[in-house]
Amino acid sequence: METARTRIGSRVLRTPVLRLDRLWLKLEQLQHTGSFKTRGAFNQVLAAVEAGGLPEAGVIAASGGNAGLAFAYAARELGARAEVFVPETAPAVKVARLRALGASVHQVGCEYAEAYEAATKRVADTGALFGHPYDQPEVCAGQGTLALELEEQAGGVDTVLVAVGGGGLMAGIAAALEGRSHVVAVEPEGCPTFHAALAAGRPVDAPVGGVAADSLGARRVGEIPYAVARRTGVESVLVSDADVIAARQALWQDHHLVVEHGTAAAYAALLTGAYTPSEGERVAVICCGANTDPTDLA
Amino acid sequence: METARTRIGSRVLRTPVLRLDRLWLKLEQLQHTGSFKTRGAFNQVLAAVEAGGLPEAGVIAASGGNAGLAFAYAARELGARAEVFVPETAPAVKVARLRALGASVHQVGCEYAEAYEAATKRVADTGALFGHPYDQPEVCAGQGTLALELEEQAGGVDTVLVAVGGGGLMAGIAAALEGRSHVVAVEPEGCPTFHAALAAGRPVDAPVGGVAADSLGARRVGEIPYAVARRTGVESVLVSDADVIAARQALWQDHHLVVEHGTAAAYAALLTGAYTPSEGERVAVICCGANTDPTDLA
Repeated sequence: METARTRIGSRVLRTPVLRLDRLWLKLEQLQHTGSFKTRGAFNQVLAAVEAGGLPEAGVIAASGGNAGLAFAYAARELGARAEVFVPETAPAVKVARLRALGASVHQVGCEYAEAYEAATKRVADTGALFGHPYDQPEVCAGQGTLALELEEQAGGVDTVLVAVGGGGLMAGIAAALEGRSHVVAVEPEGCPTFHAALAAGRPVDAPVGGVAADSLGARRVGEIPYAVARRTGVESVLVSDADVIAARQALWQDHHLVVEHGTAAAYAALLTGAYTPSEGERVAVICCGANTDPTDLA
Repeated sequence: METARTRIGSRVLRTPVLRLDRLWLKLEQLQHTGSFKTRGAFNQVLAAVEAGGLPEAGVIAASGGNAGLAFAYAARELGARAEVFVPETAPAVKVARLRALGASVHQVGCEYAEAYEAATKRVADTGALFGHPYDQPEVCAGQGTLALELEEQAGGVDTVLVAVGGGGLMAGIAAALEGRSHVVAVEPEGCPTFHAALAAGRPVDAPVGGVAADSLGARRVGEIPYAVARRTGVESVLVSDADVIAARQALWQDHHLVVEHGTAAAYAALLTGAYTPSEGERVAVICCGANTDPTDLA
């Protein structure tokens, strides 16, 4: 993890924390490209550079969301090519944002799975580096660097609440703070990948739906994240879509922070009591992304 | 200033800073009630408590904006009564927010001046403490406490860019950092109170208009702020409304921060080159408020 931190240090922002009594909000939504994904993307890409250099074909990712933005940004900053595969249904605004970062965008198929398949085929054809959204060691380690920052900034916390999609951020945090902080994985009921994996005893397909599916809607939790979470004793809690929506509104109304629904899930666990801290417990909530439309926050 | 800091320390948030290379953004828009005004309000009200206690009638303010929210909040936190006078034209949402903080809201006249007059009459009748929005020593000192935090957080900066309405924040910062940092007062062309005062050699009435009038639209800069600014050599620059609008959009698009137009004015001075830092100059921009409707930031 310290290797990752040194590697990406000058490329990412040390995002600030907001202290509210015994609650610390890690404002990672202020990271370059608006989410923590930039940390993992830089760590994977820079590790490849160290290991002998990036392929001429650059970096390929399959994501119309935060991971795609992060890999496109990392590639641009390093002067490398980026291709991002998204479904034909991807919103024009997301495609435009990827193109503004200099990426070639390929719109393929009606579902994410088709875009993913096209991306892996293109990787095989070109020899490009495949930027994985979560189930890759350097990506998880990169995400975990935010936990090391948080620990310094808050002087240590007892508990970290984090939203989970594919689980890369959860794994990074749990590994970074192993033995020092308890990690609580929060998921909306509509896309409960980690919760489903715990119930089945292994990563399994889970429903992909609800208000936070744009950022948390992985089909299943990654093998690496699942293994790290089991080893470190990550706790799982669920929240409803209504709770997520209310928590996102509360972060704006009460604290003037705009975050995406996926991020709001972590805060919802506190507001609803899905996770209830003990007296005096020091709790952190990871505000992990702000790629959202703020027009419903009037 | 240190007296103010000690006095209000437990009542206000130590707001975080976001470092972007050699630029520091002081995220004071995350303060309780969404603006720096809470610092000055607590300092004035707590100074009155120390001096013998608050009057039975509590605190009276004339403002439908950030100052009104701040005094209402401070009064509520201290278990005191608050009355806030606003024009009949005040938006229902602002009136509702004041009432949600427990304040009695009086809607008087069509202009701020009429609400102000009614407030001062009510102060004379009841003996309540009049919470001044800017031209009062404890209010200015309270606002200045954010500059002491900033200096610690950034390790000192060469220049601080701050938006100016009545000038309380400018005065507090200039006094707090006197001899160590240069202060640049940024105003929209539509409400240039400090610029007009410099031109006239004393505080004079200035136009009140433009997109930032809701937070910066004082009729004239305060006597105390003007004197402090002259003594400390505060520089004045102007920006256009179009620049302010673009800067507010940029803070959201590029940095995922939502601020009000008044705050965006300070950042606009950098984007437009109205203020151009030297090579290596360490610059801070004060993000002073977020009481804004984010629905135009899609």
